[in-house]
Amino acid sequence: MDLFSIKDPSFLKSLTVKELESLSEDIRKFLIEKLSKTGGHIGPNLGVVELTIALHKCFNSPVDKILWDVGHQSYVHKILTGRACQFDTLRQYKGLCGFPKMVESEHDVWETGHSSTSLSAAMGMAIARDLKKEKSFVVPVIGDGALTGGMALEALNHIGHEKKNMIVVLNDNEMSIAPNVGALHNVLGRLRTAGKYQWAKDELEQLLKKIPAVGGKVAQAAERIKDSLKYLLVSGVFFEELGFTYLGPIDGHNFEALFENLAYAKKTEGPVLLHVITKKGKGYGPAEKDTTGNWHGTGAYKIETGDFIKPVDAPPAWSKLVSETVRRIAREDERIVAITPAMPVGSKLEGFASEFPDRMYDVGIAEQHAATVAAGLATQKMKPFLAIYSTFLQRAYDQVVHDICRQNLNVFFGIDRAGLVGADGETHQGVFDIAFMRHIPNMVMMMPKDENEGQHLVYTALKYDHGPIAMRFPRGNGLGVPLDQELKEIPIGSWEILKNGSDGAILTFGTTIPMAMKAAEILEKQGISIKVVNARFIKPLDEAMLLDILGTNMPILTIEEAILQGGFGSSILEFASDHGFHHVQIERMGIPDQFIEHGSVKELLNEIGLTTEAVVAKLQTIARKKQKRA
Amino acid sequence: MDLFSIKDPSFLKSLTVKELESLSEDIRKFLIEKLSKTGGHIGPNLGVVELTIALHKCFNSPVDKILWDVGHQSYVHKILTGRACQFDTLRQYKGLCGFPKMVESEHDVWETGHSSTSLSAAMGMAIARDLKKEKSFVVPVIGDGALTGGMALEALNHIGHEKKNMIVVLNDNEMSIAPNVGALHNVLGRLRTAGKYQWAKDELEQLLKKIPAVGGKVAQAAERIKDSLKYLLVSGVFFEELGFTYLGPIDGHNFEALFENLAYAKKTEGPVLLHVITKKGKGYGPAEKDTTGNWHGTGAYKIETGDFIKPVDAPPAWSKLVSETVRRIAREDERIVAITPAMPVGSKLEGFASEFPDRMYDVGIAEQHAATVAAGLATQKMKPFLAIYSTFLQRAYDQVVHDICRQNLNVFFGIDRAGLVGADGETHQGVFDIAFMRHIPNMVMMMPKDENEGQHLVYTALKYDHGPIAMRFPRGNGLGVPLDQELKEIPIGSWEILKNGSDGAILTFGTTIPMAMKAAEILEKQGISIKVVNARFIKPLDEAMLLDILGTNMPILTIEEAILQGGFGSSILEFASDHGFHHVQIERMGIPDQFIEHGSVKELLNEIGLTTEAVVAKLQTIARKKQKRA
Repeated sequence: MDLFSIKDPSFLKSLTVKELESLSEDIRKFLIEKLSKTGGHIGPNLGVVELTIALHKCFNSPVDKILWDVGHQSYVHKILTGRACQFDTLRQYKGLCGFPKMVESEHDVWETGHSSTSLSAAMGMAIARDLKKEKSFVVPVIGDGALTGGMALEALNHIGHEKKNMIVVLNDNEMSIAPNVGALHNVLGRLRTAGKYQWAKDELEQLLKKIPAVGGKVAQAAERIKDSLKYLLVSGVFFEELGFTYLGPIDGHNFEALFENLAYAKKTEGPVLLHVITKKGKGYGPAEKDTTGNWHGTGAYKIETGDFIKPVDAPPAWSKLVSETVRRIAREDERIVAITPAMPVGSKLEGFASEFPDRMYDVGIAEQHAATVAAGLATQKMKPFLAIYSTFLQRAYDQVVHDICRQNLNVFFGIDRAGLVGADGETHQGVFDIAFMRHIPNMVMMMPKDENEGQHLVYTALKYDHGPIAMRFPRGNGLGVPLDQELKEIPIGSWEILKNGSDGAILTFGTTIPMAMKAAEILEKQGISIKVVNARFIKPLDEAMLLDILGTNMPILTIEEAILQGGFGSSILEFASDHGFHHVQIERMGIPDQFIEHGSVKELLNEIGLTTEAVVAKLQTIARKKQKRA
Repeated sequence: MDLFSIKDPSFLKSLTVKELESLSEDIRKFLIEKLSKTGGHIGPNLGVVELTIALHKCFNSPVDKILWDVGHQSYVHKILTGRACQFDTLRQYKGLCGFPKMVESEHDVWETGHSSTSLSAAMGMAIARDLKKEKSFVVPVIGDGALTGGMALEALNHIGHEKKNMIVVLNDNEMSIAPNVGALHNVLGRLRTAGKYQWAKDELEQLLKKIPAVGGKVAQAAERIKDSLKYLLVSGVFFEELGFTYLGPIDGHNFEALFENLAYAKKTEGPVLLHVITKKGKGYGPAEKDTTGNWHGTGAYKIETGDFIKPVDAPPAWSKLVSETVRRIAREDERIVAITPAMPVGSKLEGFASEFPDRMYDVGIAEQHAATVAAGLATQKMKPFLAIYSTFLQRAYDQVVHDICRQNLNVFFGIDRAGLVGADGETHQGVFDIAFMRHIPNMVMMMPKDENEGQHLVYTALKYDHGPIAMRFPRGNGLGVPLDQELKEIPIGSWEILKNGSDGAILTFGTTIPMAMKAAEILEKQGISIKVVNARFIKPLDEAMLLDILGTNMPILTIEEAILQGGFGSSILEFASDHGFHHVQIERMGIPDQFIEHGSVKELLNEIGLTTEAVVAKLQTIARKKQKRA
């Protein structure tokens, strides 16, 4: 059918299973083709085509609330709610968001991006529904990977206790982003194969009926066996123990099974867990065969071959540079242990894992646990390397404060995807880390100007043994600079003068250094001489150099690809105030007090006015002012 | 025995059960007497006397690592590791810490204060042990309440998966801080009563042996019944499903049972969960009878009667004022729902709960879930009141950013225990909230100067419907000011001039206002005229008033009982810089870049130089400078 003609999911009600199967095929073709050009989360979406159709056929969205945990599997939902025509703009500036977004549609009742939030949100919605005495269904759809996140488990516990009506759809594709980790995964594995016990259950019930009644005690005991059968043989005991009615596991690509179980779930009092088995990448060979997670989210690809279309001759990715440097140092330093919360692929830890299988722990989607495992290791004089994305480190803030910094433990944070991340948008921008880390006592925080300095800072961090140390680095590739053979320590709190100048100074670090250098170059030609400082230590500051610069009274401009409130620029203002330099003009550029949506990093920087031109303009103003004063 | 003579736990090895029972009695007497004067966590410690003795008898601390989750139950451990003589100074300035503290003893291998961290830390220690090929036991002791915290569940999942040797002691006292919440609690409840099924198991096994062999299928099925018995009748199925060997439940006050099970646990490969039932407050009538959590942690009390010794005629507690005001407004506004993560008593929500049982949710120790339940409620046009301590809100940072602020939802945060909290010390100081909340877009943050303004700000927050709004308020009691009958809205972002002046301005809020007023009064007498501003909105600032003040060029002093980095003072520096007031002298007073230990709030303020005298001295300097310039 013509997917562009879909306005809302009501048309599904009248379709036959055969027609739905044909629709599924159309949607798969559409997704495979569209995403081959835009990139996106192809694997998860191909896996939930039938499930999404079934949910929209069985429920009445948006009166009934369907919540997509993490949300990268919401493309089919977007198609069914009238957004097929926007897929050419997927994840692009001002285009269709890759995650549910309330402003796009009334059917997006909950926005996501980070994992494991849907059950808690659903609980809030269920409480509201009951208080308002409304009748509706609340249907969170959560993957098996997201289920290992602590807050999802907190929610299961609470929902099971409160017995609210809710239909939790467990979308079990045996793999979340990377192959799943954890005992819970094993539980799910056992449930998956539980079908074969069905015969045993039937057989046994017959047998039990034949047991002679030898008195009260044994009769009761026999009852208990039946109970135990209910729990164990039909399986689902884990969820039943938590207070859920467990249904499944069922084939998530079979409409009849989905309809039958959803209908049953709708009639069931209290919380239901419907266990649905799906195949990630279903219907597209290369994605179906994926065992590593490479087809979870992709860039553009060639449909026929499944080859990824990559920029030619790109410099090495930051993630790879960092992980491979850690790996190199780990050959000499047995204390080093790598920890990732479910991102071995994204953090490019495959090489480390294959060389040091005993010294690499993927703990699953469990950032809090990851941070405190690192803390535990550090108490035993090990040197943990916590590889974590900036945006996901947010979830371990308390553990960073309470477990790591307060005990001043030697944990090395590799903060990946720091700064703007582009297409993943506002839920994934790594723009808060400076503001939420800088104020924690004992923390050292760095950002390198290029990959060569990056490798030296990794070395510095792994040699450092006076407490926690973090290196933030951006998403994407390095600048392509040559790498020194020999690694060296860079003194903690030392900055570097990249260019001298006397009419003003730029203090900046990481990704904004090229912008600063370019601006200084342009200004030089205009007779304005700007000093550019690589402030690679965000904390502690290079106090000696900063005092020198403040002592010249020249105006200072700080630039950071991070939120301005409480950021690096603020720390310069604080320092100047604390040291009596009230008269020095200090200006800040960075990310304003708002959430930044998706788009290319360049477009986003342009939108918020973080460009070479803006830096030039700002410095022209500042420099002129100085010349007037002089 | 003489508890002061204990140097380390080695003496326990040679004691008989009878002698240990006598020691237990001595320890209980000691605790009841000492804590009657100092206050402290009496209930939890009386509950773990035998358990702690048994652990130190069966393990070799500190080679074997005993970790106390939350840590308020570590007093017996402190006595057995040579610290009885310091109990007169418990929780006092420079005295014995109320939680494990590495600097106090090598037996304190992990510091705690916040809940649910011990399993993750133990996992880190177990990994380190195995990598170093050392032989030792890692023994986290975690309460049933702490087990509902998401990170504990993340850890159980990972530990069960990795099969590391570890002995998790589940100290199940059926009540953590308040009576426990959650389905997990019900699971534990079933386990507790499982003892009575033992007979059924024996009986059934006999019966099964008698089942005639009617062929392969049924024989297999019978095997499976035995498996199911193992799981269900002996119980522990929840933990077994997660990959643990489950032992118990056993009586945590019975040495023989403890020794037998600990010995068995030590011989078991892989992770063990030893389920120990204890009685909180055991051996002291008033604490034993407690059903509400009042004897969890107390101030001083009369031993004979169990009456709490309270300061006479204290003004109302802040927690109570806030909760009761919410309750009052909730009578007219049906949208209001109160949520607490396990702190109904601490947050004084009993009145609200009894009046609105359907509109109050204690979600257990689960701050992340609590925040996102609030978000879910807010999507449905309800008005959630999240009652949460400042220090525990740290654990929901990502949920505040990603779920609440990013979706700009109408959640009212009642941030209790903001600022210095005193005796609970560095794990509980509420000093980071401004720094970790202020930089989040859409957030409004307030702090009232007294309880009358407090009730109006609560009203303001509950009327506000443009996004998240937080009111921080201190631990302890109000100032005793009269309360207006009528509640009124205070314009968002409006400050209040408390005193006019022209030689300098103090911008401050909340608890530091009396200090500022006192200082201004003293300075007035010295001919220095200081303006004092109640900056009750920390974000957004009162921009009009601030522009006025900056326009006068008078020096500004900001004072805050919060960490200085990225705090309120920084926001004033940022604003001045952004608006071209580079020449205005702005100085900041607050909490320096360090963790603050326990002691009375007064002592701590003194230590960090946040006193009236210091404010006077600072302003004398600033004012003089200004007069020189003038």
